[in-house]
Amino acid sequence: MSTPSVNRPSGRSPNQLRPVSITRSFTKHAEGSVLISFGDTKVLCTASVLEKVPPHKKGSGEGWVTAEYGMLPRSTHTRSDREAARGKQTGRTQEIQRLIGRALRSVFNLAALGERTIHLDCDVLQADGGTRTAAITGAYIAARDAVNGLLKSGALNKDPIIDSVAAISVGIYEGVPVLDLDYPEDSSCDTDMNVVMTGKGGMIELQGTAEGAAFSREELNSLLNLAEQGIQELTALQIDALKVSTLH
Amino acid sequence: MSTPSVNRPSGRSPNQLRPVSITRSFTKHAEGSVLISFGDTKVLCTASVLEKVPPHKKGSGEGWVTAEYGMLPRSTHTRSDREAARGKQTGRTQEIQRLIGRALRSVFNLAALGERTIHLDCDVLQADGGTRTAAITGAYIAARDAVNGLLKSGALNKDPIIDSVAAISVGIYEGVPVLDLDYPEDSSCDTDMNVVMTGKGGMIELQGTAEGAAFSREELNSLLNLAEQGIQELTALQIDALKVSTLH
Amino acid sequence: MSTPSVNRPSGRSPNQLRPVSITRSFTKHAEGSVLISFGDTKVLCTASVLEKVPPHKKGSGEGWVTAEYGMLPRSTHTRSDREAARGKQTGRTQEIQRLIGRALRSVFNLAALGERTIHLDCDVLQADGGTRTAAITGAYIAARDAVNGLLKSGALNKDPIIDSVAAISVGIYEGVPVLDLDYPEDSSCDTDMNVVMTGKGGMIELQGTAEGAAFSREELNSLLNLAEQGIQELTALQIDALKVSTLH
Amino acid sequence: MSTPSVNRPSGRSPNQLRPVSITRSFTKHAEGSVLISFGDTKVLCTASVLEKVPPHKKGSGEGWVTAEYGMLPRSTHTRSDREAARGKQTGRTQEIQRLIGRALRSVFNLAALGERTIHLDCDVLQADGGTRTAAITGAYIAARDAVNGLLKSGALNKDPIIDSVAAISVGIYEGVPVLDLDYPEDSSCDTDMNVVMTGKGGMIELQGTAEGAAFSREELNSLLNLAEQGIQELTALQIDALKVSTLH
Amino acid sequence: MSTPSVNRPSGRSPNQLRPVSITRSFTKHAEGSVLISFGDTKVLCTASVLEKVPPHKKGSGEGWVTAEYGMLPRSTHTRSDREAARGKQTGRTQEIQRLIGRALRSVFNLAALGERTIHLDCDVLQADGGTRTAAITGAYIAARDAVNGLLKSGALNKDPIIDSVAAISVGIYEGVPVLDLDYPEDSSCDTDMNVVMTGKGGMIELQGTAEGAAFSREELNSLLNLAEQGIQELTALQIDALKVSTLH
Amino acid sequence: MSTPSVNRPSGRSPNQLRPVSITRSFTKHAEGSVLISFGDTKVLCTASVLEKVPPHKKGSGEGWVTAEYGMLPRSTHTRSDREAARGKQTGRTQEIQRLIGRALRSVFNLAALGERTIHLDCDVLQADGGTRTAAITGAYIAARDAVNGLLKSGALNKDPIIDSVAAISVGIYEGVPVLDLDYPEDSSCDTDMNVVMTGKGGMIELQGTAEGAAFSREELNSLLNLAEQGIQELTALQIDALKVSTLH
Repeated sequence: MSTPSVNRPSGRSPNQLRPVSITRSFTKHAEGSVLISFGDTKVLCTASVLEKVPPHKKGSGEGWVTAEYGMLPRSTHTRSDREAARGKQTGRTQEIQRLIGRALRSVFNLAALGERTIHLDCDVLQADGGTRTAAITGAYIAARDAVNGLLKSGALNKDPIIDSVAAISVGIYEGVPVLDLDYPEDSSCDTDMNVVMTGKGGMIELQGTAEGAAFSREELNSLLNLAEQGIQELTALQIDALKVSTLH
Repeated sequence: MSTPSVNRPSGRSPNQLRPVSITRSFTKHAEGSVLISFGDTKVLCTASVLEKVPPHKKGSGEGWVTAEYGMLPRSTHTRSDREAARGKQTGRTQEIQRLIGRALRSVFNLAALGERTIHLDCDVLQADGGTRTAAITGAYIAARDAVNGLLKSGALNKDPIIDSVAAISVGIYEGVPVLDLDYPEDSSCDTDMNVVMTGKGGMIELQGTAEGAAFSREELNSLLNLAEQGIQELTALQIDALKVSTLH
Repeated sequence: MSTPSVNRPSGRSPNQLRPVSITRSFTKHAEGSVLISFGDTKVLCTASVLEKVPPHKKGSGEGWVTAEYGMLPRSTHTRSDREAARGKQTGRTQEIQRLIGRALRSVFNLAALGERTIHLDCDVLQADGGTRTAAITGAYIAARDAVNGLLKSGALNKDPIIDSVAAISVGIYEGVPVLDLDYPEDSSCDTDMNVVMTGKGGMIELQGTAEGAAFSREELNSLLNLAEQGIQELTALQIDALKVSTLH
Repeated sequence: MSTPSVNRPSGRSPNQLRPVSITRSFTKHAEGSVLISFGDTKVLCTASVLEKVPPHKKGSGEGWVTAEYGMLPRSTHTRSDREAARGKQTGRTQEIQRLIGRALRSVFNLAALGERTIHLDCDVLQADGGTRTAAITGAYIAARDAVNGLLKSGALNKDPIIDSVAAISVGIYEGVPVLDLDYPEDSSCDTDMNVVMTGKGGMIELQGTAEGAAFSREELNSLLNLAEQGIQELTALQIDALKVSTLH
Repeated sequence: MSTPSVNRPSGRSPNQLRPVSITRSFTKHAEGSVLISFGDTKVLCTASVLEKVPPHKKGSGEGWVTAEYGMLPRSTHTRSDREAARGKQTGRTQEIQRLIGRALRSVFNLAALGERTIHLDCDVLQADGGTRTAAITGAYIAARDAVNGLLKSGALNKDPIIDSVAAISVGIYEGVPVLDLDYPEDSSCDTDMNVVMTGKGGMIELQGTAEGAAFSREELNSLLNLAEQGIQELTALQIDALKVSTLH
Repeated sequence: MSTPSVNRPSGRSPNQLRPVSITRSFTKHAEGSVLISFGDTKVLCTASVLEKVPPHKKGSGEGWVTAEYGMLPRSTHTRSDREAARGKQTGRTQEIQRLIGRALRSVFNLAALGERTIHLDCDVLQADGGTRTAAITGAYIAARDAVNGLLKSGALNKDPIIDSVAAISVGIYEGVPVLDLDYPEDSSCDTDMNVVMTGKGGMIELQGTAEGAAFSREELNSLLNLAEQGIQELTALQIDALKVSTLH
């Protein structure tokens, strides 16, 4: 793909990801704990193994994978209200945590997991665009670490994870499709799309929204090409990160 | 497009919409009031004109368009809890009402609307799959009626609506892309996608989810072709419905 | 009773009901589903059969009958807040749904119902005064249809319903007792009373409130005479409506 | 009225009130503070003068009278949940506080009160049936004391109270109409009615409910006769209590 | 200790408690019911015996002691919002009820109590400073009465209460340490400390806060000396109050 | 002070703090952002400058300092419920955030701050005992950085901070007073005390609780001696940390 020219605020080329960093075992209590950065966006993803399942799975022999998402009040440019103090989660928060849960479930064989829950908590320490895509990409590694612990301890003897999963945003900035929007780009782009794909290249979730002008099938195809490339790079980074042995 | 063969529970061919019916002025108080049916799915969409705007628009000279969504407790096969009694809206409800709001705002020139709000209420009287797509399609007509009232009364002298908008679901049922999923199809299909487009053919929102298996770019393209065709039919039905003069 | 002369906004004579219409099987999922209109007041009453009882009835061998009430946000002249969005039901809503529940329980033999619940949902699609009386009158028919289903299927072999029940409002408008207040009458009348009676003529509930001036025993008696007559008419209409066979 | 014979658990005759005691200035901060007992039912009624009105009265030149009601958790035989801890008031609580508010407003000239609020708090210290009727009867005295303070200080120079108000319960116990039900009577009586009347004998509110069997017009008339007599006695007790000067 | 000279608003000497009055069996339903006054501060403390324990004690063989606290809306100089109406308890309320619970648990042998709960409700009828200290001091007597009932009935044959407990406030008013702050003193003192001690003289809880200026170790010691003396006086008053036999 | 011998689980001597680390500018958006560790306890403290004050300070010319506290769900050994999902903050959370707010306000001259708010958010990333003391100690540095920014920008020309503040826990472990309890020590110690002091050595807040056995004045004095020493060390560490220039 020839990359068209555009002046991104970040100075990146249209198909360039932000620097990604992945720190496993960032905190010590969780069965999986990953600090992931997409540039200045930093999300702490923990995976907790709970030996229980929600009511709709009780007695089914199957497990469950679910997620919660939150932003620290001053992870953003101006302070946001603390959701715990307001007494409820915003619609945006609920939308995102439902997305993360669906994305992670898509790579799990719930029967092989047995009647337990992998509970993913994705907390944004610093926000600069793309918090949900960083959360999904990091939550996979945390889930992988938690499941590895279950395999090592003998609680599981068959791997319930059937593929890896990662996510990236794409958008049309000043008429040009670009990869991995940061906050200044996200605020001023016309179309914003989040794409979730597996390591094997299957599409899991697609959420595209025209912010200003409607978009065409042609633009959609360009965006999806960019997203596919980005996900392949993220998948490689996930594999690399998981190669390192940790003390956990 | 050659339509592949599949035994849909409804007996419809893959690219066939359910019968659509649109009743304007269904209730008498709202500035726009539309009962829309996609088969057995029945949604009452009302548009209220409020001479105020939310805080983030105060003093901006611009108006606002927003939506709320609800299901009557026994609109579904088994009774669901009443959200007002439980004391909060589910994440699903919030996701849907945010989607309806964005879809309708995409065809409004908020500056031309002036500092007033078009508040859309979409209440499901009977559910059989596709409630959000019926809601968007009907809400457009209710909004159109409400704005026509403002134009007729002289409150507005320039039309703030710049295009029409409609929505439809598509999915992969037993390996075949099909249009406008009803509840039995929705429950057992592999991929489920909601598509929002304008009358002029621009894409506004795309939400695709792999329920069982991941989907490919090729499948995505087939689904989008189906959706485009369905939206064109819905757009024609909207135009027809709005031709009828009502006593309202 | 000689009917005194008064200019009701509706043009009705003092002892005249609004036109009543009753549509059974209005929606398809509920075991009973009735759309009832008292003039421009339209309430959808559904009866759901739940094979469980609330905690205070568990193990008692008895069933339960309960009701919930809601108004669609734009069922009223000006849009009201959606209770699900505000996060709680108003005192008025709770008062009305408790009244409907008591009224319906009064004609049920709970022991004969067995350990199951008839859950009535009364949702106001359009409000023009008298929503609670229409709700009770319609809910009886929905309950009757639901119980008929249980009898037909053999789940019950003895009818747990011991009488019919209906309700009507009466008030003093410009000094004259009148029957079945619509919204303009209700807003400007001095005394407002809701009366619930059984088909056999027993009084179940009486709620009278002096809005402006206190009322006398004599006025009370005139109001009760009017209410008795109105309930008799409603009872006849209920019987007629139930004679029609439906496909449900 | 010849009083029929019945064995009330309390040993009272059918038309006999429980002993009533009224203590003014029971607490020191409120502008009116009355501890009222109907037998073992003890309610603390305070009247607070607030120099503001709710939004719907702002700028109207009129005042407002409103009430709140609560039961201490162990005012009852078995401990009830604390409403503040549960996070919401029950439907019963809301029904009662709305009733108290309407009853008190019925004897106020809101225009003469000016743009201020009389806020009545009725808190049940000990419950033994009839808490709402004791609350209304005591709240009137608290309101009277608060208004007397406004007249004495010159904040008001015309009395906004146009009549007194009191309330009593009546019911059919073992087939006999009886006055002022205590808890054991209330639990086992067939019909339960609360009556609110002014000192001049006008009816303000009537709430009758058939608990077991429906009731007839004849029974209703007997109950109302009893209630009228009881209210007259309570009115005399209110007058007596207000004759005593307090240090407040 | 020589008592330094200070002009307390109350005219009391620095080490002088307000008059304390204790009325047992103030209400009739609770297993223990104590109205305690520290001057104009009046708190109703009830102890309820519940034959169940919270989840974390189920199956442990041990009991639980817990407390709830509330203020009647007009117990204060100006009316406070009713917490039940606002839908949540303030942080101050929660802090106080947690303190009361800890204080009472400190004198209980939970194993000897068996799997039951002593639930203390402390409701402020009139506030004039020191409501939490009066609540703890009165709750002990209510708990003692409730436990005596269990011993008398044979439900318990070993006393689970191992010591008495009382509480008092101390503060630095115009530079002088003073005992038992009333509201005017509390509002203008520099340091405010609440001290909870057992009858045997052990310290249970110490909560000191510098309101204006920081305080020194020397000042702290003077305050603790005062508090010890006050608690000894309260302990003697508790013993006296419990000597009286009640009809309860 | 001769340090008695005890086998702390951590191997520390009785008067030894855990290693403390302080990272300023940990996140980029907040006006002050400090990650502080007391051993394995890690708290992110941010200070936000808001150009508004709460209602009770409006028009006073004075500013405000307040705090909120939260724990990430998996900061603890076993996952805790997310407070935002549960819809309310626990009593413990409210107690701690009120303590942090009071502690920080004690070193501010609110008049010199002007009508603005310093909002401190203390979020626990990893918990191992002493989260509230770490939060206060870190929040001071964050507040200092935020105020330095206001002084540098000229928004303030007089420093509103009048002293530094820090906090530490002390307790009696196996009969020996020890400094800075970690989680295993905190869980099994008899008395637990949190002490807040200023850099100049004034006491700000003292919260001591007997967990198992009551404590004596002598033990209290030993604990306070330890706390004073610990606070002096923390004060020195705060000064060192603030000497480093940051890029922020």
